[in-house]
Amino acid sequence: MKACILAVGSEMLTPFRVDTNSLFITELLNTIGYDVRLKAVVADDLDELAGVISGALAWADLLVLTGGLGPTEDDLTRDAVARVLGVPLDVDERIVDRIRERFARRGMAMPDINRRQGMVPRGAEVLENPNGTAPGLWIQRDKIAIVLLPGPPREMKPMFEAVVRDRLAPHSGTAGLFRRVLKITGRTESDVDAQAQPIYAKWITRRVPISTTILAVLGQIELHLTTAAPSQAEADAALDEAVRELQDALGHAIYSTDGKGLEAVVGDLLRARHMTIAVAESCSGGLLASRLTDVPGSSDYVERGLVTYSNRSKTELLGVREALIAEHGAVSEPVAEAMARAVRERAGTNVGVGITGIAGPGGGTPEKPVGTVCIAVVVDGDERVRTFPFFGGREMVKFQSTQAAMNMLRLMLLKT
Amino acid sequence: MKACILAVGSEMLTPFRVDTNSLFITELLNTIGYDVRLKAVVADDLDELAGVISGALAWADLLVLTGGLGPTEDDLTRDAVARVLGVPLDVDERIVDRIRERFARRGMAMPDINRRQGMVPRGAEVLENPNGTAPGLWIQRDKIAIVLLPGPPREMKPMFEAVVRDRLAPHSGTAGLFRRVLKITGRTESDVDAQAQPIYAKWITRRVPISTTILAVLGQIELHLTTAAPSQAEADAALDEAVRELQDALGHAIYSTDGKGLEAVVGDLLRARHMTIAVAESCSGGLLASRLTDVPGSSDYVERGLVTYSNRSKTELLGVREALIAEHGAVSEPVAEAMARAVRERAGTNVGVGITGIAGPGGGTPEKPVGTVCIAVVVDGDERVRTFPFFGGREMVKFQSTQAAMNMLRLMLLKT
Repeated sequence: MKACILAVGSEMLTPFRVDTNSLFITELLNTIGYDVRLKAVVADDLDELAGVISGALAWADLLVLTGGLGPTEDDLTRDAVARVLGVPLDVDERIVDRIRERFARRGMAMPDINRRQGMVPRGAEVLENPNGTAPGLWIQRDKIAIVLLPGPPREMKPMFEAVVRDRLAPHSGTAGLFRRVLKITGRTESDVDAQAQPIYAKWITRRVPISTTILAVLGQIELHLTTAAPSQAEADAALDEAVRELQDALGHAIYSTDGKGLEAVVGDLLRARHMTIAVAESCSGGLLASRLTDVPGSSDYVERGLVTYSNRSKTELLGVREALIAEHGAVSEPVAEAMARAVRERAGTNVGVGITGIAGPGGGTPEKPVGTVCIAVVVDGDERVRTFPFFGGREMVKFQSTQAAMNMLRLMLLKT
Repeated sequence: MKACILAVGSEMLTPFRVDTNSLFITELLNTIGYDVRLKAVVADDLDELAGVISGALAWADLLVLTGGLGPTEDDLTRDAVARVLGVPLDVDERIVDRIRERFARRGMAMPDINRRQGMVPRGAEVLENPNGTAPGLWIQRDKIAIVLLPGPPREMKPMFEAVVRDRLAPHSGTAGLFRRVLKITGRTESDVDAQAQPIYAKWITRRVPISTTILAVLGQIELHLTTAAPSQAEADAALDEAVRELQDALGHAIYSTDGKGLEAVVGDLLRARHMTIAVAESCSGGLLASRLTDVPGSSDYVERGLVTYSNRSKTELLGVREALIAEHGAVSEPVAEAMARAVRERAGTNVGVGITGIAGPGGGTPEKPVGTVCIAVVVDGDERVRTFPFFGGREMVKFQSTQAAMNMLRLMLLKT
């Protein structure tokens, strides 16, 4: 089954935006055996949009459009689809009523232009949008399905999940694509690939062949394992075996085999050990606390965080002695250790983390260039401290600092 | 002049890859007056690729293809272009010689398959590739230019820069595209559009016409103003006037007209007033401190941040009385105010911010559902506190909290 994904909106054709909706849509479609053969971004222009839609209908089994369902004159997806199918647009008063209620719940009157969002090409079925005003639409045209979804990801995603579950998957009947994502941190891409490549190269000729892609993102390497199998059970058996082979070779460098982020993995380890954590951050500026608390339920183990950005705050909040800072510099292993120990002791937690470094662009010296970050982790009686040479701009240094701190903690927790 | 950008390669149609080459190409094209009307990612399939190319040639003045120029059977861009144009593929022995030399310089023999990279549609001119084996190709077909470039960005970018400089810019003779981005927070999209649309609707018929796109992203509305003008000076004059008209209507709701983020705008306001800031966060978990410290030089005004996640830490670090929490609940305006006042007083800063709320997914009640967030801001003698009903998941509630807190602070600072 061939699918085409179209993102509608002139703002998506500027140098500032990429269409990431299509990645999510592709992933779901692959699991039910659809092959995405074309994706495109089209301007807010009725003729051009109609031209692309009509081209896709010549070969696609499924056409997914995102965006262009808002209330303004620019929002032309409904109009273009109606024109290509040669059907009129009707106002569905039930949709208008629902949008009006949505505004009313926030104590607001619905602006008149929002009536446009109630217009549907005749014959279309409405797809509920729990997170916004624009409803989606489903149109079946002979054997071709056309799905219209709003552009904002938080609206689009649950709606497309429902479309796959309720409308596409039950009729797909084909083999799906199944994936595993292994996440690795603390190693370089070439280093990981030199070790993994001789292993995964053999998988491609197996009875259930597995193809492997290696992907380096900031502070992390991912190995994507993909297999086409007639059933979830056969895919699982093949993928489980493959994951085991890589784990035997790479050991604890693999922190996740189920898509979980590092902050969730660390959270699970803390929770399983009934441990609590407090962090003291300088250059990472609160990003470690923020990432740890991105995990639902993290209030069970995150006790507090201190962003000791000024030297004064390091002394007042953590009792880091001015003499220690004067002797070693604020960016030093002794100061990182003092921060980790003090925040742990004062918070009464099992774990304390201290991060101090130079995020840049200013503040670097020949001995301590921008990107130099000292990280200390204390877990009950155990303590580790390291100095890292991170690369890139300010936000990249901040992110790598939090990644390294969580990985140090993870490796220490695995030994307890 | 209308341009179409096609990225060729099945690997670009997986859930793991986005086409970022097109952003670079778009930016360069815009400066010489080309408008990108369509971009697409196409699979390594001769029929499908030929179909898309032939569709684009019906309307585009310029077609830029990236990828599919490698030596393998999968690399079909040359073949598809030749087929659509109805010309044969010839082997250009000078290209083959150059590839052979490239291998020789690394002490390697050229594999036979690399001869494929010497095949060119008859009538094409060769574009040098200083960073790889695959040469680019330039084909002029009546008024339409077709450019074939390799996919790897480090090969593609210098080649496309040369194409623009040497071949496209000298003949463009047209105006460039110039842009302004206005950023707005604290208002809804339809509300902003109802006020802005009557203003920007008139611009399209001006001597230097300006087109406007409205874009809602989480916690923020953007108005993108685009104009084609013969010179930077004329564009600036037209855009400055347009920005002024919107500022007159929308006032302080517009926080940025030069692309700056809210954290940088707030930072500028603090710096200009020689003010310092300390923040106390509960539900936002350090994200406010992290966003404030994303700005280079923010150590000049960010003194400290406290992530008082547990009630105990609120009492120990901020002296928030247990009785106050018991009476009003941890998520309440009195607690937010107590946090803001205490962190400001203890840090000795001009500004104190307190954020407490329910980020979800757990912890909601009928009176205080998930998304309820209380924010207090104290600026020297002045104080504001508000309760917000944010929507969406945990990370969205966190982000909206920081956005709202910074906007409250911005509006207060503008009055000082």
